[in-house]
Amino acid sequence: MTNGSFTMSEPGKNLKIGITMGCPAGVGPEIVLKALGKTWPEDIKLVVLGDASWLKTVAQQLGLFQDWPIISQPRELDELTQHAVLNLSELSQVHWGQPDLETAKAMVGYIKEGVRLCQEGLLHALVTAPISKTALKLAGEPYPGHTEMLADLTGTKEFAMAFWGEKLKIVLVTIHVALKEVPHLLSQEEILKAARLAYQFLKNDLGLKAPRLALAALNPHASEGGLFGQEEEKILIPAVKAAQEEGLPLFGPYPSDSLFFRAVKGEFDLVVSLYHDQGLIPFKLLHFEDGVNLTLGLPIIRTSVDHGTAYDIAGKGVANPQSLFKAIELAIHMAKNRMAGNT
Amino acid sequence: MTNGSFTMSEPGKNLKIGITMGCPAGVGPEIVLKALGKTWPEDIKLVVLGDASWLKTVAQQLGLFQDWPIISQPRELDELTQHAVLNLSELSQVHWGQPDLETAKAMVGYIKEGVRLCQEGLLHALVTAPISKTALKLAGEPYPGHTEMLADLTGTKEFAMAFWGEKLKIVLVTIHVALKEVPHLLSQEEILKAARLAYQFLKNDLGLKAPRLALAALNPHASEGGLFGQEEEKILIPAVKAAQEEGLPLFGPYPSDSLFFRAVKGEFDLVVSLYHDQGLIPFKLLHFEDGVNLTLGLPIIRTSVDHGTAYDIAGKGVANPQSLFKAIELAIHMAKNRMAGNT
Repeated sequence: MTNGSFTMSEPGKNLKIGITMGCPAGVGPEIVLKALGKTWPEDIKLVVLGDASWLKTVAQQLGLFQDWPIISQPRELDELTQHAVLNLSELSQVHWGQPDLETAKAMVGYIKEGVRLCQEGLLHALVTAPISKTALKLAGEPYPGHTEMLADLTGTKEFAMAFWGEKLKIVLVTIHVALKEVPHLLSQEEILKAARLAYQFLKNDLGLKAPRLALAALNPHASEGGLFGQEEEKILIPAVKAAQEEGLPLFGPYPSDSLFFRAVKGEFDLVVSLYHDQGLIPFKLLHFEDGVNLTLGLPIIRTSVDHGTAYDIAGKGVANPQSLFKAIELAIHMAKNRMAGNT
Repeated sequence: MTNGSFTMSEPGKNLKIGITMGCPAGVGPEIVLKALGKTWPEDIKLVVLGDASWLKTVAQQLGLFQDWPIISQPRELDELTQHAVLNLSELSQVHWGQPDLETAKAMVGYIKEGVRLCQEGLLHALVTAPISKTALKLAGEPYPGHTEMLADLTGTKEFAMAFWGEKLKIVLVTIHVALKEVPHLLSQEEILKAARLAYQFLKNDLGLKAPRLALAALNPHASEGGLFGQEEEKILIPAVKAAQEEGLPLFGPYPSDSLFFRAVKGEFDLVVSLYHDQGLIPFKLLHFEDGVNLTLGLPIIRTSVDHGTAYDIAGKGVANPQSLFKAIELAIHMAKNRMAGNT
């Protein structure tokens, strides 16, 4: 199994984790400042990709950590001895909660530069702070969110949205579609794709020796042998069989009402969930404040906060940075595991 | 608001809670014996409706409490001074895990007699131990489970399946149907029916002064204004409006991935869930071992364990009685509240 195109500029030394500032008018600046002010292991260097003068303003306004150096050239990343801000924009003004053309373009720029630096090996992972659909649209970008944009920027065809929490990990087979479309969108191949990406994640990125994946059923009681729906027999059971034939440790399909409990108790390491709410109802119930969103299948390591720009509370100093902290921790963990696998 | 046909033979005195023994070959006998051996408040008298000699055998086999009197006539219920077993069958033999015609017929008899005694006011509530579809079929009964049987026995047309836990309470709008049928089965009227029954339950049975109900959305992100599905706009939003117009405190529809977290945090007292797994994934995640299943809309109070006959562990002494204990506690709570409402 390969680790994709991940490369290290100086394996075993400092890990440089890029953090995009997200939408300047959202809670992104506040939570990345909170991350810069937190104590991290000695060999970790955080690099915020954003707007240095807006971050200074926010730090002053909200009384947050402001003792970070500003760098303006990617080559300075090589000599980094402490957390820093890589200045990528010169915003003239920002109004909390109100993205405009200038902030939207800047926001997209942080992501593009982050991807580039990861691809060049100058950063070892990218953690993204929240952006909004509104801002993406303002910037003229065709993407509904980070996931699709990152896949496009890295030329990735097979990717999946996953969520990581201490207690529960899930991958989604379908995402933002009407519930009534879900049964029509399911196929053996889509399930296998998600299961393969999830297996590689557990094995290479989380370092699990013998991961176990479970497939959630679509119908109540997994259809009780066809009593309520045919998808288990026609799609899910064959998909599990095909997965096992290619050596993937995928089990099920199991009735989804008890499966998530079983996974949390340790029976499975990850649940392959067929639709958005099937996976996210249990995930958010357990990890509302400390969940991490990630894209599987990308050649770079990318994790993200599991919340939005929260424009309603932006600039108030009350944003909870837990999800970002967890996203950074996970990115570090993944980068170290990939590094270990590479040597 | 009426309390239905609920009547009390001796209000304010002893509360008599009937407990059906369930399938004799399942874990029912073991857990009802554990309930009889537990300490309950002084004014509570448990009455197990089952097979006295089989219960004695099981109590001896598993070393469970056996110091309970056997009564054989319902009129003896009036003079009850301690927990008792009302003997309703004379089973010749029982094989663990293997229901037969005799045990199946007896199992159905316990339920029918329990309903009758509740309707006559000799019992104040009925708590049911698990039965199986296999056994119901063996007995020649047309019902898929307790719920439909109890509705039929009491001539109830409008009923709903609900689940009660300390942290989360839900009612289901649709139950045992294929997921792809769910969007077609939803209607304003079905949602209103479930919401009305749930409101009466919270108000009359749980004694909440100002209950708040939330409606879960069908589509991810509650469809984001029609982006993923039309059901929110066409059915759910009008249903909430209609509910509020008739004075029902129903709110939403809310994105279901965060709604259950919000309900658990106290923002809502109950979630009206549109389909089986939507409600039961979060419910079982929180209340796998201590959840209570109940039927709303019946003229009698009825609660149930939230698990099956567990034939695989029947007779081994390892069945967890927590769900039955909670079902009994809830039945007591409901009976007391209805009593208070009646005086």
